[in-house]
Amino acid sequence: MSHGIVLFAHGSRDAAWHAPIEAVAARMRALAPGVRVACAYLELTEPDLATAVQALLADGGRAVTVWPMFLGAGRHAREDLPRLLDTLRTCHPGITFTLQPAIGEHPDVLDTMARTALGETRR
Amino acid sequence: MSHGIVLFAHGSRDAAWHAPIEAVAARMRALAPGVRVACAYLELTEPDLATAVQALLADGGRAVTVWPMFLGAGRHAREDLPRLLDTLRTCHPGITFTLQPAIGEHPDVLDTMARTALGETRR
Repeated sequence: MSHGIVLFAHGSRDAAWHAPIEAVAARMRALAPGVRVACAYLELTEPDLATAVQALLADGGRAVTVWPMFLGAGRHAREDLPRLLDTLRTCHPGITFTLQPAIGEHPDVLDTMARTALGETRR
Repeated sequence: MSHGIVLFAHGSRDAAWHAPIEAVAARMRALAPGVRVACAYLELTEPDLATAVQALLADGGRAVTVWPMFLGAGRHAREDLPRLLDTLRTCHPGITFTLQPAIGEHPDVLDTMARTALGETRR
């Protein structure tokens, strides 16, 4: 494989917290068998971004796309993550790293959340 | 109106943080004109849940559905929110309060996040 995807979330002391993030990764693998997806966390939950990226690259990856799994776009998505990406680029020359906007800002995700909140409420 | 919906998110010191939450509310109003939707926050961003609910009820609401706008389901969604709902029920007898699961756990939202992360990465 040449392209890996990292779902990057905040992390939590709560062991159940990351289940939905892992569920998105599982759904991606079901939709696109063979796709290389890893989850990574800013703090409190393992693995961290550097560890997840290293595993993807050990598998032969030459490009990595990072998706911030945030609904709101605060300091973590706008400041911490670009800094982490800069470090990755320094550590892994020759690898292309792409940072996407927070997933909660994507129009399709916004739209589905709106329809979900409307639809389930009316049942 | 008889039914109000609250989108409940964490809140942040960052003023731009809540834009996607407000965008979901705006999308809901566009999809269902006349629907009463309010945003509320656990901390750092206003209004809080009690204030948002009071405004919905002042408009004639008799039932309120609360959607936790979280991707992961940690302490806030599983402990803080049920406690806040208990307080609301005590303060507003005769009003029906319904607490939904975290929006990030809904199968449609999980699926859309997975398709978004796959689709945008392949472009």
